[in-house]
Amino acid sequence: MIIGGAEDKLHKRTILKDFVAASGGADARIAVIPTASSLGPEVVEVYDALFRRLGAAEVVAVRPESREDAHDPELVARLAGATGIFMTGGNQLKLSALVCGTPLADAIVDAHERGVVVAGTSAGASIQSSHMVAFGGPGSTPKQRMTQVAAGLGLLDSTVIDQHFDQRNRYGRLLMIVAQSPQLLGIGVDEDTAAIVHHVDDHDVLSVVGRGAVTVFDPSRIVTNAYEAKRSSTLLASGVLLHVLPEGSRFDLTTRTLVAQAAGVDPAEAADLAEAGQDLRDLARDIAAADASPGALRRRLARSRTRPDTRQARREQQSPQHRTDQDGAS
Amino acid sequence: MIIGGAEDKLHKRTILKDFVAASGGADARIAVIPTASSLGPEVVEVYDALFRRLGAAEVVAVRPESREDAHDPELVARLAGATGIFMTGGNQLKLSALVCGTPLADAIVDAHERGVVVAGTSAGASIQSSHMVAFGGPGSTPKQRMTQVAAGLGLLDSTVIDQHFDQRNRYGRLLMIVAQSPQLLGIGVDEDTAAIVHHVDDHDVLSVVGRGAVTVFDPSRIVTNAYEAKRSSTLLASGVLLHVLPEGSRFDLTTRTLVAQAAGVDPAEAADLAEAGQDLRDLARDIAAADASPGALRRRLARSRTRPDTRQARREQQSPQHRTDQDGAS
Repeated sequence: MIIGGAEDKLHKRTILKDFVAASGGADARIAVIPTASSLGPEVVEVYDALFRRLGAAEVVAVRPESREDAHDPELVARLAGATGIFMTGGNQLKLSALVCGTPLADAIVDAHERGVVVAGTSAGASIQSSHMVAFGGPGSTPKQRMTQVAAGLGLLDSTVIDQHFDQRNRYGRLLMIVAQSPQLLGIGVDEDTAAIVHHVDDHDVLSVVGRGAVTVFDPSRIVTNAYEAKRSSTLLASGVLLHVLPEGSRFDLTTRTLVAQAAGVDPAEAADLAEAGQDLRDLARDIAAADASPGALRRRLARSRTRPDTRQARREQQSPQHRTDQDGAS
Repeated sequence: MIIGGAEDKLHKRTILKDFVAASGGADARIAVIPTASSLGPEVVEVYDALFRRLGAAEVVAVRPESREDAHDPELVARLAGATGIFMTGGNQLKLSALVCGTPLADAIVDAHERGVVVAGTSAGASIQSSHMVAFGGPGSTPKQRMTQVAAGLGLLDSTVIDQHFDQRNRYGRLLMIVAQSPQLLGIGVDEDTAAIVHHVDDHDVLSVVGRGAVTVFDPSRIVTNAYEAKRSSTLLASGVLLHVLPEGSRFDLTTRTLVAQAAGVDPAEAADLAEAGQDLRDLARDIAAADASPGALRRRLARSRTRPDTRQARREQQSPQHRTDQDGAS
């Protein structure tokens, strides 16, 4: 569960609720890893209070402050009974530098493999990919050397994750990385938005929850000069396939394609469509039959025209939420 | 000539120089249309001074301040002898509202068709496309209603142009427009950067000059919910082909593909490659021949190893610029 930072903690809390629910709800035992943060125990207290308020049974802090700590069997053991692991925001390079390649990292990867929900926000999101954005500046246009890559936990292979994507204008730096490493899929997650990855039928499928979008760069067919561009020059990155995915979208990371959605048809509209279809079939039959005189056609049309009233009546019976929110593309 | 705004006016002035040169250099007669600007005569004075300093023979102001003005035959006639037309920045909706659909607009389109260079910066860039970004907010993620479209001059058909693209973070609004109108190609031009379009063999070919990039969105195969998304919701925009084009790139707008560049090979490197190729051919011949004893191979390799010195010597004779700028992808 890859959260783009600044997830709502006070109001709807959709993403954090989803995390607690996925971790077992009332049975959830959540381990919080706040190592990325430079704040003191406050950050643990915030998430402790939050997860308990959202119904979790238990919250434990697992806070290595050195690689030595991350080798401590007592600390590593705290992950044993966890049903969910949550990595906070902060400095992802601190998190990866203290955790990656230690028994604690192995324990996180093992937990993930046996189905424990691993979530992280901001820095805790970045570290989940195999290749991690270490740091770098903002800007839409990719420039050589505008960012650095470090090694992440690798819960998601062949990817590089960026966060606060819209809010901090990070198109350029993620494009730079995929231009230099076109076997990586670039995943940018907006604030208060989560990319939830499930392993389904041997595929990794990403679903989107939250207010913003998850942006995916697929550079499989890129034409680029990133291997020879000098200093901080603007990069050529031609032929990158771009996917902007709002809440409700699903994207197959294995095939790198959008998962088609069953179109959400309003039940009233579906009934209208069925009825109109029947009218047309009746009309076609009448025309095909010998009696399709102009008079018969007129009568048929007059009968059809009375129908809208019955449709309207049926619509009125529908619960009102089917008819609010009608300010679409008109 | 589509300039993304904030073109360098004081130092190298690459883009403005290119414009004056394309307009005929010392024979250039340039008409400046400053209607987008809310500034007074100062904006004309700036460009007047600039274009004269860059060698233009004549600079005339063509400044309608109402649609009435843009119908004035005397004003329209000022375009008659122009070899270059330059539209300044400001408010593109003012420019299009006062000019589009008037005899002045017809005169600009006619001039463009007979080969007069038409350039514009910022607002003057936007108005060149058939569909124009009227206004709208920043942000990387496309949201319904974040921007508005108006009709532009249409010098470039089936396109929508945006400017200050990187600097004002306008990915989102341009993506919104192409998601709603997937027959349009979206073209975003960074500041101090120009997209120069030439008509070559029945194709429109775009070349890039300047410090930033030209970003092209090709939504031909987009999957989107933009026709039904509510209010200001985040849009689905999956399968958009993205091209980020730095200086020197060429892009065929007709086929929507990057124009392959002849790789810029350093002459010294090319000579080395030719020599190494000859070595390999010699070696292959020796191995194929019966005399390919281990001793013969050793002698052959020893001879090859002496070659780098002669290569080095030749490199020293090359002019020094072949060897600066060597801090590429190392």
